Amino acid sequence: MYEQKIRKIMAGIVEKNFSIDEAVKKLKFLPYEDLGFAKIDHHRVLRKGFPEVVFCQNKTKEHVVQIVKRLSKNNTQVLATRATEEMFNEVKKNIKNTQYNKYSKTIIINKSDKIMKKGKILILSAGTSDINVAEEAAVVAESMGNKVERIYDVGVAGLHRLLGNKEKIEDADVLIIVAGMDGVLPSVVSGLVGKPIIAVPTSVGYGASFKGIAPLLTMLNSCSPGVVVVNIDNGFGAGYFASLINR
Amino acid sequence: MYEQKIRKIMAGIVEKNFSIDEAVKKLKFLPYEDLGFAKIDHHRVLRKGFPEVVFCQNKTKEHVVQIVKRLSKNNTQVLATRATEEMFNEVKKNIKNTQYNKYSKTIIINKSDKIMKKGKILILSAGTSDINVAEEAAVVAESMGNKVERIYDVGVAGLHRLLGNKEKIEDADVLIIVAGMDGVLPSVVSGLVGKPIIAVPTSVGYGASFKGIAPLLTMLNSCSPGVVVVNIDNGFGAGYFASLINR
Amino acid sequence: MYEQKIRKIMAGIVEKNFSIDEAVKKLKFLPYEDLGFAKIDHHRVLRKGFPEVVFCQNKTKEHVVQIVKRLSKNNTQVLATRATEEMFNEVKKNIKNTQYNKYSKTIIINKSDKIMKKGKILILSAGTSDINVAEEAAVVAESMGNKVERIYDVGVAGLHRLLGNKEKIEDADVLIIVAGMDGVLPSVVSGLVGKPIIAVPTSVGYGASFKGIAPLLTMLNSCSPGVVVVNIDNGFGAGYFASLINR
Amino acid sequence: MYEQKIRKIMAGIVEKNFSIDEAVKKLKFLPYEDLGFAKIDHHRVLRKGFPEVVFCQNKTKEHVVQIVKRLSKNNTQVLATRATEEMFNEVKKNIKNTQYNKYSKTIIINKSDKIMKKGKILILSAGTSDINVAEEAAVVAESMGNKVERIYDVGVAGLHRLLGNKEKIEDADVLIIVAGMDGVLPSVVSGLVGKPIIAVPTSVGYGASFKGIAPLLTMLNSCSPGVVVVNIDNGFGAGYFASLINR
Amino acid sequence: MYEQKIRKIMAGIVEKNFSIDEAVKKLKFLPYEDLGFAKIDHHRVLRKGFPEVVFCQNKTKEHVVQIVKRLSKNNTQVLATRATEEMFNEVKKNIKNTQYNKYSKTIIINKSDKIMKKGKILILSAGTSDINVAEEAAVVAESMGNKVERIYDVGVAGLHRLLGNKEKIEDADVLIIVAGMDGVLPSVVSGLVGKPIIAVPTSVGYGASFKGIAPLLTMLNSCSPGVVVVNIDNGFGAGYFASLINR
Amino acid sequence: MYEQKIRKIMAGIVEKNFSIDEAVKKLKFLPYEDLGFAKIDHHRVLRKGFPEVVFCQNKTKEHVVQIVKRLSKNNTQVLATRATEEMFNEVKKNIKNTQYNKYSKTIIINKSDKIMKKGKILILSAGTSDINVAEEAAVVAESMGNKVERIYDVGVAGLHRLLGNKEKIEDADVLIIVAGMDGVLPSVVSGLVGKPIIAVPTSVGYGASFKGIAPLLTMLNSCSPGVVVVNIDNGFGAGYFASLINR
Amino acid sequence: MYEQKIRKIMAGIVEKNFSIDEAVKKLKFLPYEDLGFAKIDHHRVLRKGFPEVVFCQNKTKEHVVQIVKRLSKNNTQVLATRATEEMFNEVKKNIKNTQYNKYSKTIIINKSDKIMKKGKILILSAGTSDINVAEEAAVVAESMGNKVERIYDVGVAGLHRLLGNKEKIEDADVLIIVAGMDGVLPSVVSGLVGKPIIAVPTSVGYGASFKGIAPLLTMLNSCSPGVVVVNIDNGFGAGYFASLINR
Amino acid sequence: MYEQKIRKIMAGIVEKNFSIDEAVKKLKFLPYEDLGFAKIDHHRVLRKGFPEVVFCQNKTKEHVVQIVKRLSKNNTQVLATRATEEMFNEVKKNIKNTQYNKYSKTIIINKSDKIMKKGKILILSAGTSDINVAEEAAVVAESMGNKVERIYDVGVAGLHRLLGNKEKIEDADVLIIVAGMDGVLPSVVSGLVGKPIIAVPTSVGYGASFKGIAPLLTMLNSCSPGVVVVNIDNGFGAGYFASLINR
Repeated sequence: MYEQKIRKIMAGIVEKNFSIDEAVKKLKFLPYEDLGFAKIDHHRVLRKGFPEVVFCQNKTKEHVVQIVKRLSKNNTQVLATRATEEMFNEVKKNIKNTQYNKYSKTIIINKSDKIMKKGKILILSAGTSDINVAEEAAVVAESMGNKVERIYDVGVAGLHRLLGNKEKIEDADVLIIVAGMDGVLPSVVSGLVGKPIIAVPTSVGYGASFKGIAPLLTMLNSCSPGVVVVNIDNGFGAGYFASLINR
Repeated sequence: MYEQKIRKIMAGIVEKNFSIDEAVKKLKFLPYEDLGFAKIDHHRVLRKGFPEVVFCQNKTKEHVVQIVKRLSKNNTQVLATRATEEMFNEVKKNIKNTQYNKYSKTIIINKSDKIMKKGKILILSAGTSDINVAEEAAVVAESMGNKVERIYDVGVAGLHRLLGNKEKIEDADVLIIVAGMDGVLPSVVSGLVGKPIIAVPTSVGYGASFKGIAPLLTMLNSCSPGVVVVNIDNGFGAGYFASLINR
Repeated sequence: MYEQKIRKIMAGIVEKNFSIDEAVKKLKFLPYEDLGFAKIDHHRVLRKGFPEVVFCQNKTKEHVVQIVKRLSKNNTQVLATRATEEMFNEVKKNIKNTQYNKYSKTIIINKSDKIMKKGKILILSAGTSDINVAEEAAVVAESMGNKVERIYDVGVAGLHRLLGNKEKIEDADVLIIVAGMDGVLPSVVSGLVGKPIIAVPTSVGYGASFKGIAPLLTMLNSCSPGVVVVNIDNGFGAGYFASLINR
Repeated sequence: MYEQKIRKIMAGIVEKNFSIDEAVKKLKFLPYEDLGFAKIDHHRVLRKGFPEVVFCQNKTKEHVVQIVKRLSKNNTQVLATRATEEMFNEVKKNIKNTQYNKYSKTIIINKSDKIMKKGKILILSAGTSDINVAEEAAVVAESMGNKVERIYDVGVAGLHRLLGNKEKIEDADVLIIVAGMDGVLPSVVSGLVGKPIIAVPTSVGYGASFKGIAPLLTMLNSCSPGVVVVNIDNGFGAGYFASLINR
Repeated sequence: MYEQKIRKIMAGIVEKNFSIDEAVKKLKFLPYEDLGFAKIDHHRVLRKGFPEVVFCQNKTKEHVVQIVKRLSKNNTQVLATRATEEMFNEVKKNIKNTQYNKYSKTIIINKSDKIMKKGKILILSAGTSDINVAEEAAVVAESMGNKVERIYDVGVAGLHRLLGNKEKIEDADVLIIVAGMDGVLPSVVSGLVGKPIIAVPTSVGYGASFKGIAPLLTMLNSCSPGVVVVNIDNGFGAGYFASLINR
Repeated sequence: MYEQKIRKIMAGIVEKNFSIDEAVKKLKFLPYEDLGFAKIDHHRVLRKGFPEVVFCQNKTKEHVVQIVKRLSKNNTQVLATRATEEMFNEVKKNIKNTQYNKYSKTIIINKSDKIMKKGKILILSAGTSDINVAEEAAVVAESMGNKVERIYDVGVAGLHRLLGNKEKIEDADVLIIVAGMDGVLPSVVSGLVGKPIIAVPTSVGYGASFKGIAPLLTMLNSCSPGVVVVNIDNGFGAGYFASLINR
Repeated sequence: MYEQKIRKIMAGIVEKNFSIDEAVKKLKFLPYEDLGFAKIDHHRVLRKGFPEVVFCQNKTKEHVVQIVKRLSKNNTQVLATRATEEMFNEVKKNIKNTQYNKYSKTIIINKSDKIMKKGKILILSAGTSDINVAEEAAVVAESMGNKVERIYDVGVAGLHRLLGNKEKIEDADVLIIVAGMDGVLPSVVSGLVGKPIIAVPTSVGYGASFKGIAPLLTMLNSCSPGVVVVNIDNGFGAGYFASLINR
Repeated sequence: MYEQKIRKIMAGIVEKNFSIDEAVKKLKFLPYEDLGFAKIDHHRVLRKGFPEVVFCQNKTKEHVVQIVKRLSKNNTQVLATRATEEMFNEVKKNIKNTQYNKYSKTIIINKSDKIMKKGKILILSAGTSDINVAEEAAVVAESMGNKVERIYDVGVAGLHRLLGNKEKIEDADVLIIVAGMDGVLPSVVSGLVGKPIIAVPTSVGYGASFKGIAPLLTMLNSCSPGVVVVNIDNGFGAGYFASLINR
């Protein structure tokens, strides 16, 4: 649609429907909606393949509600991450078909059930405390139309728990591995299989884990190739990237 | 006035109105007002061109009120930054014409409306969450007599939102660009126009943004020249410096 | 082959060709070759899909030569990264069909030309100084059977250089983006297209780039989704991961 | 020239001299010259007001010579920073009117003497060891048509050396202040005058100066407003920004 | 007293009042009082010249009360730092002549007024927000028998406020200078006079002051000699060290 | 038991009781119990010599209760660390013989008293504020069957307090030394005796102790050999490792 | 011997052979030999169980030779670590039975072969490049009378190389595990066996390994208990501590 | 002399020998000598009590020679620190009575022997490798007229070496304690005596000593009061400050 609009504008010049200056002006007001505090990117789905996702952290409740409302008008699905339960309650008052996941802290608005499940993304977490981040990745990947499987609490302190799931690991198309503290799980899995691994360091830990720096460095330095890294606690980014691969 | 006082003192020596020792003493008690916990710099407007601005963070409510009261006696305008709503309420009880901006956290006392708008400072923010810092810059620049225009939420995740505002960008005299997370907006704008850009990193973000270190480093390392940087969240400093350029 | 060997050993137990203890022993001597200072992983191609790559940095010249010699006996292709010209000269004396790339610092031994080009990996570099790292990624991806295209020196200081290559960017399956200093290129490209982007920070820069920390943080904090990150200067890891996606 | 070319291309569409698709293609090949390892930005002077400056650090001698040669064809002046004496010797063989400054490590090629001196930029250095960085700023500012004055070695260890130059400080339009170690000079000068101050931390120092981190932090935290900061040792950026203000 | 006890024990051996083994045992039980959770060092005044000072931070209210009670039995003065008002109220219930200073957060118990004032310690603070730390230094120095003078809010943003107090500065024996944010005050004062300066960085500031790291580094790198540094916010250490010099 | 199960499975193959594929399946379902959010490692005692210890920090109350309940079915003793009093109260409702230690924040469930005391572990703390961490080490070591002795508050500010306990130090088999702030105690003790010392840095301190980084670095750099280090505040790890030595 | 000397001195007081003051003096000149630049600790073997080890790094060649000469007079074995080949050549000229190990950079002087091998220390290295550090640990442990076995290059990139050595791992009394880059090997081995593991991070790696910080943090945060850590590249400390356990 | 000159200038105004403007001019040209690259502070001895000391690091040989020559004209003693042997050789050619100390890297020019020894400064070093820094402190203190005593290599690895020197420690007026690696020596000595201790961290060490950060932090966090800190390797600053105390 976006490219068509651009071609239409250019064609308008050719057909002398409007001047060059008018065309330049038109180009500037292409579809984003300006709320002052936010510029809503309604045509991101055309440019990137998925609609804009609302990152709620650091935003006021009022801003979140307004942004979600506008997006839900133009899209069959809206996803908001890092949302508090309070934000959800406010959104729910305004919009139907709204669901909240208390682990992943996500709000999802679905106007259609037709999301087709394709590919398979396997999400591993090293510990029980990493589940929130893992769930953010899972919900994002699911909302983007992927089959998602979860295996939680398979850190190397009990290596057999991991090895006992080797078949599932070999069966996946993409792996998302979520780990805090020492962050060694991606390196170990990468030594076992030749699948693309997206490693997500978490801020789970204490002392010299430095709120996720330790697992972040471990993952960046993985001596087994096939591992890439996203920001600390960035389950969203991992789920999103896995979806890009799966497409 | 300050230089005149100094010359007057020196002239006093020449005219033998007082001894050298008395002159030295006079020089020491030039116009700052000593409250014990604070030394109020009433003649800063002479030395720097703008009156002292009260930085409220880390001060007690009582100290803020007293300092603002003294400054408002000798100046037609007083500006206080990083003020809580509670501080404002206390100040309001004591002084007229007091206004509070809940985004910028500023208190302004204006005894005259004669501030002349000159030059044009354009303030861009990468995201909605960066608005508080952007507003601090805007309020400071406005209070110092500049025309200020704001364009918020034009981060590179939707580059067309930025490009759609290119005319306004080319029309400004100075740009203040406020961004957290990856902090790339100043580099990109600097690649488009040859205007002085004051980059303000914000503490907005999570994980490896390290409360503003990530955008701070991005901005310091901008490979496109024409970008200078102020402290994390220092909207005040950016607004102040833009005013110095505009003068 | 590896799984067959394992099944063969297990079958040997069933058929009572050898005892359980003998079987356990056999499993231990499965195909890695022990040189004392190194254990060569001849069957990695079976486990991971690509043969072991020799990382030469921090190894002695003698060790590199011996490892490369052993690998070249069992594989039709051997790749060694971070190799000095001196190492190459020593390897060349011992093995035929050896080639050295002075930008990527790679040694390649190819006994067959049959590598099939599939998929398309586009490698962008922000500056001329980032080429060494970009070439490491390119050589690795090519040696793993991918079509590779390069566009170098398209940093945002001249944004039109990037935009002028937008078609090629949209045509690629995977993007590898190599940047030092402020490291903003991946964020900007990610705002333009919905392709998986592997960002490689480089140690190019000075002062507050801290040998690659600045671009590393920029990339980890990219506010546009679809970006993952590898270690500083890790062209190899980026080329390898891109190949995993392309498979 | 650049905008004219764009308008000409658009006019070409209107006059049906070529199709829209041909126009899009033309736009992509606008004037940057592709050397493979570098894309030379011949029209930066149109976009930013100054021609591209060659940053030689981390480039090979061969690359520097080729880039400088191409730029010198289309510009009446070429500036290259962080150049070694060896690079200069190689450039000199190929191009006339080439000058090298061993303190600032700059190469300048001037085909015309008509640079008009306007405005006044004052450059202060805290110590003798900061002169190289100060000279880089000075040479850049001079080559961009500014009057430049230097006062070196006026650090606060002998405050009277600074105070003795107060008149010159008050007489300048913009101040560039270069300091390593504790980096306090910009704060002190900012307490004295109301001029825009561009602070340049240097890597001069030892121990806990951490190659420039200490003065960088000092300058970012300046409690006297009116100070902005550029990267460690970035004399170029300071001279460039001062020129933008002066314009 | 302590050395006498030791000599007495040794003399006891000589006079065969007890065996060597008994002497060794006696030496082990010299005067510290073991409360299990704390070993109270009653004879520190003999070894170091001042009695043990109770550092209350990180201790429970119960522990503080018990330690203060025991110390107050054997000493004419007890000093406790980093005490909360709640701790003070609990101590007051148990011990007479107890005073609390809400700025310095100190509890003082004085059984005698005979503390002799000698020497002169001048305490400067850069800002109003640094007063708590400055007061901790002041109270400690006073309790150790020094004359103490305070000049607060004389940071370099208004250099004349400092210069106006130059006589007092030259009149002091030791200077304690307390500063947060950029921490430049000690360097500047050190450039003016040849007095020993104890610099105390404070955690006052925001963003890149990193809770006191910025002023700490500034002070460690002071290019004017005569400055030593204590831990961030360590008013106690500065007051104590100044007293050692003054003795 | 675990090895027997494995041998039994392999024997089952030999005796043709089940096929190879069935055997592989059996191996995968060896005793860990999958709760979804956690995989309980019932046979860790067989693999590591001690049962799994529950690390409660970052877990929800509900998760802790469920994990402790399952473990207490299969083990005569269960240990949970970093437990809040609230978690304990919830556990107590469900399980008998449950004890809570408010200093060490540990929950212990003991179904048998037969733990045999052997070896001797001496735990030293530098200050009163380090006791919580020291107690965690003590409780862990005791629960693993060791004799434990504690000497608290023997930091070097009063070196005689340490020297007065030299006999006990020489009498121990392993030393655990817990210290915050400057963390010098392990170095000093290591200069006195030739015992294995496990150093535990604590987050006790302020300013430049950086929540335990200062003592961590001190301990890692101990110039007296015989000192190893665990994570900041990791009393558990120290107690566990000391038990491994003592076994 | 040392304690006897002390008792003898004390007995001398009892028997009035010398006065108390003379005794105090004697105590001060107990056996360390003062070379001015070094105080040689001849009786460390009595206090710590092993003679002083010479740490050559940062010492001049001349100082090393003199210290080694003096130590070799009073000890049947002398060990010097971090010695250059040049230092060795100088030592060899002066002392017999001197041996140099070019991997571990150690000089050993042995006047007797009677060192009894006891216990078993197993040393694992993750990569070939970690061998130098591993050898330092090995040589130190051997010189202190332990049986030492080495398994090198068993990092998790090829997990089967590690698992193939599981028997040897279970057979050892103490494990020393040396790893750079991601440093995950200790965590993985700790998940397999219940042996005390001394983890040694190495400076091997590049980029975000930050010369050993990455593996250091990984090891400190190991989520599997039973791992303690020494300084980066500190093979000596690991070998020494393993010997203390083995005693 | 300086104050006299100022008074003379002011008197000149009173006596109408010159105008106010002429007086202001005179004040600006008070005695510092401007070499362009350096402003020599001839009257620092009047302001600070000691002449300017030349810090040679980061200066060119030519600059050092010129500065030393000018200073030696107006002072009976000149001190230059961080000087290379090459600088010394160049200075020697130009000036008589020049001496070089290869440990402290100092050049001293003495035209008079009349320096009076007063007070007593004791300098302790933890190791042999710390001697260079200790010598810098010693030479500076001696050149400023203090009695200096040295005790080197008394680190806590052999605590008796320190305790054997306790008398000398108690006899000193000020202590300078130089230590690298763990930097614990100042804390330990401070626990023994009540003398002012100036702690100097050195860059001696490896791995996690981070070129002096570890001992710097240890010293800043000393839990025994009476310790202040200077920059890493800053022997000069320590010697200078000790002299200020001794005066």
